[in-house]
Amino acid sequence: MSEAVEQQQDPDQPPMVAEDGSPANMELEESKEMTEQGEPVEVPAEEPAVPTEPLIPAEYEKLVKGCEENPEDFNGWVYLLQYVEQENHLGVVRKAFDAFFLHYPYCYGYWKKFADTEKKHGNVQVAEEVYRRGVQAIPLSVDLWLHYMSFIKDNADHEDPETAGRIRAAYEHAVLAAGTDFRSDRLWEAYINWETEQEKLANVTAIYDRILGIPTQLYSQHLQRFKEHVQNNNPKHFLSEEEFVQLRMELAKANVAAAANGEGEEATPAEEVTEIENMRHKVIESRQEVFNQNEQEVSKRWAFEEGIKRPYFHVKALEKTQLSNWKEYLDYEIENGTPERVVVLFERCLIACALYEDFWTKYAKYIEGYSIDGVRHVYKKACSIHLTKKPNIHLLWAAFEEQQGNIAEARRILKALEAAVPALAMVRLRRVSLERRHGNLEEAEALLREAIASGKNTSETSFYAVKLARQLLKVQRSLAKARNVLLDAIDKDQASAKLYLNLLELEYSGDVQQNEVDILACFDRALSSPLPLDSRLTFSQRKIEFLQDFGSDINKLVTAYDEHQKLLKENESAKRKAENGLTLTSLCTKQ
Amino acid sequence: MSEAVEQQQDPDQPPMVAEDGSPANMELEESKEMTEQGEPVEVPAEEPAVPTEPLIPAEYEKLVKGCEENPEDFNGWVYLLQYVEQENHLGVVRKAFDAFFLHYPYCYGYWKKFADTEKKHGNVQVAEEVYRRGVQAIPLSVDLWLHYMSFIKDNADHEDPETAGRIRAAYEHAVLAAGTDFRSDRLWEAYINWETEQEKLANVTAIYDRILGIPTQLYSQHLQRFKEHVQNNNPKHFLSEEEFVQLRMELAKANVAAAANGEGEEATPAEEVTEIENMRHKVIESRQEVFNQNEQEVSKRWAFEEGIKRPYFHVKALEKTQLSNWKEYLDYEIENGTPERVVVLFERCLIACALYEDFWTKYAKYIEGYSIDGVRHVYKKACSIHLTKKPNIHLLWAAFEEQQGNIAEARRILKALEAAVPALAMVRLRRVSLERRHGNLEEAEALLREAIASGKNTSETSFYAVKLARQLLKVQRSLAKARNVLLDAIDKDQASAKLYLNLLELEYSGDVQQNEVDILACFDRALSSPLPLDSRLTFSQRKIEFLQDFGSDINKLVTAYDEHQKLLKENESAKRKAENGLTLTSLCTKQ
Repeated sequence: MSEAVEQQQDPDQPPMVAEDGSPANMELEESKEMTEQGEPVEVPAEEPAVPTEPLIPAEYEKLVKGCEENPEDFNGWVYLLQYVEQENHLGVVRKAFDAFFLHYPYCYGYWKKFADTEKKHGNVQVAEEVYRRGVQAIPLSVDLWLHYMSFIKDNADHEDPETAGRIRAAYEHAVLAAGTDFRSDRLWEAYINWETEQEKLANVTAIYDRILGIPTQLYSQHLQRFKEHVQNNNPKHFLSEEEFVQLRMELAKANVAAAANGEGEEATPAEEVTEIENMRHKVIESRQEVFNQNEQEVSKRWAFEEGIKRPYFHVKALEKTQLSNWKEYLDYEIENGTPERVVVLFERCLIACALYEDFWTKYAKYIEGYSIDGVRHVYKKACSIHLTKKPNIHLLWAAFEEQQGNIAEARRILKALEAAVPALAMVRLRRVSLERRHGNLEEAEALLREAIASGKNTSETSFYAVKLARQLLKVQRSLAKARNVLLDAIDKDQASAKLYLNLLELEYSGDVQQNEVDILACFDRALSSPLPLDSRLTFSQRKIEFLQDFGSDINKLVTAYDEHQKLLKENESAKRKAENGLTLTSLCTKQ
Repeated sequence: MSEAVEQQQDPDQPPMVAEDGSPANMELEESKEMTEQGEPVEVPAEEPAVPTEPLIPAEYEKLVKGCEENPEDFNGWVYLLQYVEQENHLGVVRKAFDAFFLHYPYCYGYWKKFADTEKKHGNVQVAEEVYRRGVQAIPLSVDLWLHYMSFIKDNADHEDPETAGRIRAAYEHAVLAAGTDFRSDRLWEAYINWETEQEKLANVTAIYDRILGIPTQLYSQHLQRFKEHVQNNNPKHFLSEEEFVQLRMELAKANVAAAANGEGEEATPAEEVTEIENMRHKVIESRQEVFNQNEQEVSKRWAFEEGIKRPYFHVKALEKTQLSNWKEYLDYEIENGTPERVVVLFERCLIACALYEDFWTKYAKYIEGYSIDGVRHVYKKACSIHLTKKPNIHLLWAAFEEQQGNIAEARRILKALEAAVPALAMVRLRRVSLERRHGNLEEAEALLREAIASGKNTSETSFYAVKLARQLLKVQRSLAKARNVLLDAIDKDQASAKLYLNLLELEYSGDVQQNEVDILACFDRALSSPLPLDSRLTFSQRKIEFLQDFGSDINKLVTAYDEHQKLLKENESAKRKAENGLTLTSLCTKQ
C-alpha cells in the first residue's frame, strides 16, 4: 500500500484529489454524453462518446488486464489510475475508473478525482453524474457530499431563481443520506451556513431542530451556535410563523395573567424588549430539553465512537480492537437502538470493514428478521463487489437462496464462486450436496467424478474418491460401485491410509461374517502396500482386533499375531536406526 | 534384591549354602518319609512325617502368605527361607522350600541348601531325593550336579562292591543331562578324575573321546590333559581291549611292510618301546582330528559364549546386549546346529532368561516343527512356573490348544490366567472370542456383560460396552440391543466421546436417509453432553458433514453451520482465556 493511497483514504488529511478551485467551465460546449439533469447516466465510457480520441494504448490494456486478473492488488489500481491521469485520454480514464469502482466503490476520493477530470475536460454535467453515482455508491460519505455540494454551488447559475431551491434540495438529499452519521457535523454545519448566507433564518432554526436531536460528535457545539443564532437575531426572523404566533400567544396569556394583578395598558418599548427576551428564553428552553435527551444518547455511544479509529474504507487489515469495537457497538445498537439506527451503523461498519465476511454475515442475519429482499441485497453486495473470492459468504448466500426455493440461483452462485476460485473442495461438495438434495443423483455423481478426474494431486483425487464411494454406498446403495471407486483410487494412490480405511469400512458395512474373506483381503492389501510402517502397524493391530472380535478361525488369529510381532520388530529396529542416526548427527554437531 | 541373594546366584562366588563338611549322619534312624531308593518322593511336607514337631508358628503363616500373594517379590522368599532356617523346624522348612521351588526351581543353590538341611536333620535319603528333584528341575546345572555327586560320594558305602558302579551311573546321568553345555568342563573333569582315581584308565580314555568332540569352554585343556594321560600310561591300560588289538594289528602290518625291506626277527626291547610310542602317536593323532573339527565348532560359538555374562537364573533383568546375544546365538544355532544342540541352547537360555516371554515363545515356535507335545510342555512350563502372570504367552498357549481342538483346555488356561491377573481386557476379550468362535454366543455376551458390571471405572465399562454393542450388532445382528447397550453406557459415562462415536457408527450402519432423525439425535446428544469443547467441535463438524453429504434439508445444514460458528467462538474465547491465564502465570513465575 503506497503512502499516497493511505493519505488519500484518511479523512483527517487534506484530500489527495487536487482541488483546483477553478470556476466551472459551464460555458464550454457540453459533450454528447450529457443527458437531462437528474437522469442517471449509465456507464458513460460505454457510449460512443469520444470517437475523435486516439486509440487505446497497449500499455493501458496491459495494466488493466493485470488489475482485472488480480483485483485485490490495490496498488495495481492506483498505478493504473495514475497512468491514465497522465495520458490525458478521457476514454481510458473513464474505462479505468469504471473498472476500478466495480471493485472499490467505497474510495470516495477517487469519485471526486474522476469528477474533477471530467470537469477539467469541460464535461460539467458528466462530472455531476459522476458525483451522483458516487453518493449512490457511498451515501454515508460526508466528505463526498461536501465535495458534491461545493461542485453544485460552484457550477450553479446564480441568476436562475430556481438555483437556491435546487441547492437546498441537494442539501436535503445529503443530510437524509448521511445526516444520522455520528460524524456528520460538517455536513449539517455547511447546510446551516448556507441557509444563513441565504438569510433564511427560520430554515436555520428548523435545521438546528433536527441536528439537536441527533447523536453526533459535536452535539454540544450545535447548541452553543444555536444559542448565538437565537441571541443575534429577532425571533420574528428566526422562528417559523407558526412557532412565532404560538409563542406570542403563550407569552400574551402569561401577560394577561400578570395584568390581572396590575395595569392593562399597551406594551411600552421596554416591554417589547422583554417580550423578545422572553421569547428567546422560551425557544432555548424547549431546545435544551431535546438537547439533554440527545446528550444521554451520545454518552451511551461515546466510547464506541472513540474506538472507531478508521471509519473509512481501506484495503489494509483493521486492528483486532477496532474489529471487536465494531462488533460490540453493533450488538449494543441491536439491543438498544431502533432498526433505522442499526441499519445506519451496519452501513457505516461495512465501509470500514467491507473486506470482513463476518460483518456482512451478521448484517444479513440481522436483516433476515425484517426483509428477505434486504438479505438478498446484502449478500449480493458483499459477494459481487467486496468479497468476490470469499467462499463462506457465498455458501451462505447459496444456502439462503436454496432456503427460499431458488435452486437455480443457488446453483448459479456456487458455479460463479467456483469459476472465481477454482478447485475449492468445500464449494464442490456444496454443489454435489445441492444436486443430491434435489434428487439429481447423476449430476451429483458426475460432479464428484469430474473432481476426481481433475484433481491436482493424489491427495485431492483420493479425497473425492472417498466422498463418491460413500455417496454410492449410502445414497445410491451400490456397494459394488463404491468398492470399484475405492479400488481405482487405491490403484492410483497406494500409500493413502485413508483409502484402505474407507475400503475397510465399506467391507465392514455388510455382514462381517459373510464378508470375512473380503475384509481380510482388504487388510492384506494395506499390509502389503507401500504405506509407512506405522500405518501398517495400525492396520495389523486392527486386523488382529477384527479376527478376535469377528473372525472364524483361531489359526488366522495366531498367524496375524505372529505377523504383527514381525512388524513390531521391524519398527523397533527402524527406531533404533533412527536413534543411532540422531546420535551420530548430534555428535557431528558437537564437533 | 538383596546382595546376599545375588552372591548366591553367582557361580563364580562360593555358594551361599553352608558346606558344613560334617560326616553324613547315616547311623541315625531314617525318618518315615523315606521311600525306596530311586523312587521320587512327592512333596514330602504333605506327608504326616513329623508329627512330633511343634505347631507351625503364626509368623511363618504370615510370611508364607505374603510370598504366595506376591510371588514375584524374591526378597520376600529369601526372608522366608532365612526365617525357617533359624527356626530349625523341619516341617516349615520343607513347606517353605516346596512353596519356593514352585516358583523358583532354577535357584540351584537353594536345592543344595534344602538338601543340606535334610542331611543335618539326619535324613540322608530325603536329602538325596531333594537333589534328585533338583537336577530334574534344572538338569543343566553343572554346579548342582557337582554338589549332588559330592553328596553321593560322601554318603556312599565304600565297602559295598556295587558302590563304584552306582557312582559311575550317577556321573553318566550327569553328563548326559548337562555334558553338552559349553560350560560343562568341571563336570567332565570330575568324572575323569574319579575314573582315574578308580584306576579305570580305559574308561578315562572313553570319557575323553566324548568330551573332545563336544564344543566347550576348556576344549583345548582337555586335549592337553588327554596327551598327559596317554604319555603317562601304558596303552595296554588306557585303551579298550578292542582299540588296543586293532592298533597292534595296524602297527604289525606296518612292520611287516618294513620287514619286507629288512630283517624279519623278533622284536627287541628297544623295538617294544618304539611300538608303545607309535601306539601313543596313533592314539593322539586320531583324537587330534576330532579336536580340530571341534575347535572349528567352538570358534563359531566363541563370541556368543563370551557374550553370556550371566548364564544362571536371576530375578533381576538381563542387560539388553545379553538378551540380543541370546537371540542371535539361538538364531545361529537354529540355522546351523542340530536339533539337539538347539534344544540344549534353548534350555540354557531359558534358565538365564526364564522371565522373558519372548524366548519361551521362540522355543515353542521352534519345537512346533518337531513335536506338538513338546510345544505343550514348553508352554506349560513357562505358564505354570515362570510366567504365571504374563498374559501374552498364556494367550498363545490357549490359542495353541484351541488350534489342537482342545477347547476346554484353552478355556481353562484363559480362566486360570484371569484368576491370577484379574481384569485384563485382552484376556477377557480372548475368552469372549473363544466362546464366539465355538458358537456360544450367549456365553460370549454374558462374559461381556459381566465385564461391564464389574468394571472398576467408566473407562472400563464403556470399553466393554462398545465391544458388546459391536458384537450384538455384527454377530447377533440386533441393532436394537446394541443401541440399548450404548445408551445405557452413555447414561453412566456421559463424557465419553468414544461412546457417542460408536452410537453414531451404529446409526450410520443402516440407511442414512431413513435414519436421519436418529443420526441427528445422536449428534445432538453429543453436542449437549458434558463432553469437552474440542470434542463437541469435532461432533459439530461431523454433523455438518453428515448434513452436507446425506441430509435432506438445507435449513438444518444452515442451522448446524450457525451452531458450529457459536462453538468456534466459544472455543476462541476459551483459548484466549487460557492464554491470558498462561501469561499471568508466567508473569508470576518471573517475579
